[in-house]
Amino acid sequence: MIQVGIVGATGYAGQELVRLLVQHPECQVKYITSRSYIDQRFSAVYGNFVKIVEDKCIEKEMIELAKEVDVLFIALPHGIASANISKELLKHAKVIDLGADYRIKDIKVYDEWYKTEHKSAELLEEAVYGLCELKRDEIKGKQLIANPGCYTTCSILSLFPLVKEGLIDNSSIIVDAKSGVSGAGRSLDIGTHYTECNESIKAYKIAAHRHTPEIEQELSIAAGEEIVINFTPHLVPMNRGILVTAYANLKKSASYQEVREVFEKYYKDEQFIRLLPEGIYPETKWVKGSNYCDINFKIDKRTNRIIVMGTIDNVFKGAAGQAVQNMNILFNLPEKTGIDYIPMFPV
Amino acid sequence: MIQVGIVGATGYAGQELVRLLVQHPECQVKYITSRSYIDQRFSAVYGNFVKIVEDKCIEKEMIELAKEVDVLFIALPHGIASANISKELLKHAKVIDLGADYRIKDIKVYDEWYKTEHKSAELLEEAVYGLCELKRDEIKGKQLIANPGCYTTCSILSLFPLVKEGLIDNSSIIVDAKSGVSGAGRSLDIGTHYTECNESIKAYKIAAHRHTPEIEQELSIAAGEEIVINFTPHLVPMNRGILVTAYANLKKSASYQEVREVFEKYYKDEQFIRLLPEGIYPETKWVKGSNYCDINFKIDKRTNRIIVMGTIDNVFKGAAGQAVQNMNILFNLPEKTGIDYIPMFPV
Amino acid sequence: MIQVGIVGATGYAGQELVRLLVQHPECQVKYITSRSYIDQRFSAVYGNFVKIVEDKCIEKEMIELAKEVDVLFIALPHGIASANISKELLKHAKVIDLGADYRIKDIKVYDEWYKTEHKSAELLEEAVYGLCELKRDEIKGKQLIANPGCYTTCSILSLFPLVKEGLIDNSSIIVDAKSGVSGAGRSLDIGTHYTECNESIKAYKIAAHRHTPEIEQELSIAAGEEIVINFTPHLVPMNRGILVTAYANLKKSASYQEVREVFEKYYKDEQFIRLLPEGIYPETKWVKGSNYCDINFKIDKRTNRIIVMGTIDNVFKGAAGQAVQNMNILFNLPEKTGIDYIPMFPV
Amino acid sequence: MIQVGIVGATGYAGQELVRLLVQHPECQVKYITSRSYIDQRFSAVYGNFVKIVEDKCIEKEMIELAKEVDVLFIALPHGIASANISKELLKHAKVIDLGADYRIKDIKVYDEWYKTEHKSAELLEEAVYGLCELKRDEIKGKQLIANPGCYTTCSILSLFPLVKEGLIDNSSIIVDAKSGVSGAGRSLDIGTHYTECNESIKAYKIAAHRHTPEIEQELSIAAGEEIVINFTPHLVPMNRGILVTAYANLKKSASYQEVREVFEKYYKDEQFIRLLPEGIYPETKWVKGSNYCDINFKIDKRTNRIIVMGTIDNVFKGAAGQAVQNMNILFNLPEKTGIDYIPMFPV
Repeated sequence: MIQVGIVGATGYAGQELVRLLVQHPECQVKYITSRSYIDQRFSAVYGNFVKIVEDKCIEKEMIELAKEVDVLFIALPHGIASANISKELLKHAKVIDLGADYRIKDIKVYDEWYKTEHKSAELLEEAVYGLCELKRDEIKGKQLIANPGCYTTCSILSLFPLVKEGLIDNSSIIVDAKSGVSGAGRSLDIGTHYTECNESIKAYKIAAHRHTPEIEQELSIAAGEEIVINFTPHLVPMNRGILVTAYANLKKSASYQEVREVFEKYYKDEQFIRLLPEGIYPETKWVKGSNYCDINFKIDKRTNRIIVMGTIDNVFKGAAGQAVQNMNILFNLPEKTGIDYIPMFPV
Repeated sequence: MIQVGIVGATGYAGQELVRLLVQHPECQVKYITSRSYIDQRFSAVYGNFVKIVEDKCIEKEMIELAKEVDVLFIALPHGIASANISKELLKHAKVIDLGADYRIKDIKVYDEWYKTEHKSAELLEEAVYGLCELKRDEIKGKQLIANPGCYTTCSILSLFPLVKEGLIDNSSIIVDAKSGVSGAGRSLDIGTHYTECNESIKAYKIAAHRHTPEIEQELSIAAGEEIVINFTPHLVPMNRGILVTAYANLKKSASYQEVREVFEKYYKDEQFIRLLPEGIYPETKWVKGSNYCDINFKIDKRTNRIIVMGTIDNVFKGAAGQAVQNMNILFNLPEKTGIDYIPMFPV
Repeated sequence: MIQVGIVGATGYAGQELVRLLVQHPECQVKYITSRSYIDQRFSAVYGNFVKIVEDKCIEKEMIELAKEVDVLFIALPHGIASANISKELLKHAKVIDLGADYRIKDIKVYDEWYKTEHKSAELLEEAVYGLCELKRDEIKGKQLIANPGCYTTCSILSLFPLVKEGLIDNSSIIVDAKSGVSGAGRSLDIGTHYTECNESIKAYKIAAHRHTPEIEQELSIAAGEEIVINFTPHLVPMNRGILVTAYANLKKSASYQEVREVFEKYYKDEQFIRLLPEGIYPETKWVKGSNYCDINFKIDKRTNRIIVMGTIDNVFKGAAGQAVQNMNILFNLPEKTGIDYIPMFPV
Repeated sequence: MIQVGIVGATGYAGQELVRLLVQHPECQVKYITSRSYIDQRFSAVYGNFVKIVEDKCIEKEMIELAKEVDVLFIALPHGIASANISKELLKHAKVIDLGADYRIKDIKVYDEWYKTEHKSAELLEEAVYGLCELKRDEIKGKQLIANPGCYTTCSILSLFPLVKEGLIDNSSIIVDAKSGVSGAGRSLDIGTHYTECNESIKAYKIAAHRHTPEIEQELSIAAGEEIVINFTPHLVPMNRGILVTAYANLKKSASYQEVREVFEKYYKDEQFIRLLPEGIYPETKWVKGSNYCDINFKIDKRTNRIIVMGTIDNVFKGAAGQAVQNMNILFNLPEKTGIDYIPMFPV
């Protein structure tokens, strides 16, 4: 059994990790930590765990935590992981960081978007950007995985084949993304107070969201050239789910079938990516509670643009599920182990 | 492997059965039937099953269906099951009926509430009311199980210990129940059109809901005397979940702890019933996606009334989950097999 | 023109007062106050008022505020109004207090439920409980109005004719109430964080909600005897609206029509109370954005109980609308002036 | 008093017309028609109108209807108005058509997008596209007004100044629009069944929505050249509200202030258009229940694109409110008469 520790277990991503790992057939959860709820029963914080996880939340130095397990999942606000992870720590345990600290390879870009000094930039080289379907081979054998963000997972998977195969004008990419409110986390804020976000939609952090450079980095690698995009997130009155609607100019006109073949080249054998039948477009409801990413696209002949739509469950594939998927790769388990849930409906 | 058939798979309870049974470690789903979607891929009806269940829905005589499997799950509107199930059919397969046809033992009561002639009243004696936690021993070895309704499961479990132990005035029971909209099913109706039920709450079928006699029947058995109750269901703008708030006069004053012991006498070893800690009351969110029933109560000394609250996921414990639990009992599997999900949050 | 001041304008009730009073044909809003947003534009706090109310929020001693207006609307947490209102202040302006301080006539009951010492108990005698339809004549000519709570308005109006006419066993009253989340106000709290209360329902403050003694007080006055009730509020995932489902034992059996006549005796000439047609029951959607209270009932012959249902818009009739209605009475305006909105649908 | 008739009063736009016109100080509603609910009380169809509009719905030849009023509001599916309106009819009454029949000037474009033969193409020349803020002068004195669609009103108002002043590359316009479910109307459909669209978001009619040619037509007129755009509508789980997020390449770099001046040139004196303060972006909640259109934009220097956001209440400004605004213009009333509502919050 793999011994795992969950650091920051009382955020939404953290508690989803608890749910998945407690039920994972090859794992044993050694401890769950929480700064906010230290010494409180986890089930008093998350009532779904009554009679299931009755452990108390602990708090300890991260290096000590690492000594007790094989793999450390970290679900903390950015800046904390990078201040606590070290080469020394990585000798004791593998680390899967659900935060942003090791995702951006260019330290200047990180500083610019996160306005924080990175405390362990020397680890960036070792860290792998853990978008499983695209980085599987790089992930194997590593000690430090930067688990991708929710918007980024969905955006990159939706656009990757087009960029990789050079089908679109890379300067024309616009990503209009929509997320459920769980993406904003559990911290109280007037913007996520029920009566303030229910029954309303808005764009936010327009041309300023921190997932932008992450998407650009990975698409640029795929393209072999620097890509700059527009990324506009929207807050949708629902709990879970992300929909990405991405626009780009086709370099030359192409049929649905021609482009479909490009998507299939990369995704047809992927368990967790579902290219929907022609004419059927992603809806967030169909992926809720699962690790799936649904994708389809339409070509608008009038404008010669392609519109790609992708959906994921932001808490599952966009956070905890993909983190477990990364663990499965790291420990040579079948990639679907413990995350092979059928989406639940209606929920 | 147990061979199972799912009849009426394209209703909400039916598709949840598909989800649970496809993932059940001891089952093989032989076919799924649907009158409305005959010959269509199941995944075209329920997009969550794309790449998971790509079978087509079939339609066949029920007796023929029974011959192909060990157990038949029937999720159809009332009246159809009773017109098709026979002693002959039960020789071929066990039947777990999620509809109402075999729940009411008194045929006059059935006729009165359902305004339908019962076509196989001779089977009522053989049928067991499959509320697993209370009828476990009666279920074993039977061929025909009447799976309880959603409101009834929650109402009976919330009140059973009080009635069984004679703590309350049985003539004073009032059940005020609240359900998410999935309880109304998938059939189109102005009352469940999004803009008509979103952001609004109403009572419906006041003193006239068909789950009333079912609750009364089982509580009467427990009490050893006839019980008549008030039952008022409400439609709540959410997808899943039932909350029961039940009121009754205590026969004599009692402390929380005294009553708690009565609940624990019946439920403390039940995996799927969670008596919450004192002062913590059920919320539907904590049981979503699971087979759990959460219960707690408050005694109001000012009125000498007890207020019991119970919650279940109406599609899971209130329908498909309990049906699988019944199958597990029938086939001598550990009762939790294939339904041991941790509730998912936030969803 | 009546000069009005709004104290505590940045809570939900306060901002609704601003909306109604700015559009009121006989009023001029002199100022709006807010402790939290002092010197900020009101429209920066509530974006619906951009280009409509661009005044800044002020903060000043309440006695000074009173000198500038004819009537002071106070929408503050309990305890503040009673610490600041005095006989001296009431010489300068009439006061309509939307808080709880002057609702409970018995100071011991207030202390017991609010756990606060009342700072101006000498004013309780002068204060009128401003439930307009029932207290119209007492309100006229007064200086201090205690505007009723939201749950209480709906509960009392639903039960008043039955209690007044002695149709029910007063010891049997149970009020099961359901409210939208706006009732909890704008203060941040984990219980009203979007992802924590969306898609879930719960009971709260069971047998302990502060509106209980208010309902009891007014029903007791109507009955001419002391009434103790059960009151259970529930939080429903929607913005606005209250539904009350009240249960009571009929003293003797009665037909729908007989009881209907009792309701009509009191309500048939009331503009803002709508007794729905027989068989049509209240839904919160039909009163949203209005001052209406919809009522209907069902008699369950099996249990000889009556089930009364009532709905209001908690922010309108349950707070700001009724406050304006009280002002209209105080200033001898037609009672509907400025609050005669048709409910808006679908919203 | 202006005598008005409302044809098709039992759709969502129709009943909103009833609400606005019943309260309009210069109007008298002569009748309301409904094919589906003929001879039924309007308040039995829409419970918000109990005790307010107790008239029965009628059904009559449109020419006869026209003879009884000064202005006819028509809220019917496309194809019906054009089959019934004639020069003869327009001699009797002015017509404000909320449907699509007279919006598209080019009959070929209409045929292509609506797949219907237009039955009164000879009236297209007389019809004015009634987007009030842009067509005020053309509207005056006319007999036939084509009231704009909801998406189109919001899209055109958001983009008009940019196109008119030539600030953007007209071939680069992408409109990503999000609508509440009321936009889909009251007809039952699996896509608007509560449990099917609640808690989910999807794009639909991608590159194929019928509002596309309407937006293109009006923007082309403003630009003086043919404009083809991408338009992608999304269904958002909320009742009311439209958000448009529009993208375009700036012809040359420009500061926020420079572009702001262009918007102010056209909109600063418009009562119903609110250019929000810099840094504050539209949210649908702030315009609900009103005729306002809120607009703001951001310039992304990294891509030299402008992102414009606009919001309206789709049932109000996007349908009934603008129709009344058109009537006010036609009858030389102050444009805000009867539609000068402050947005309601939280709702």
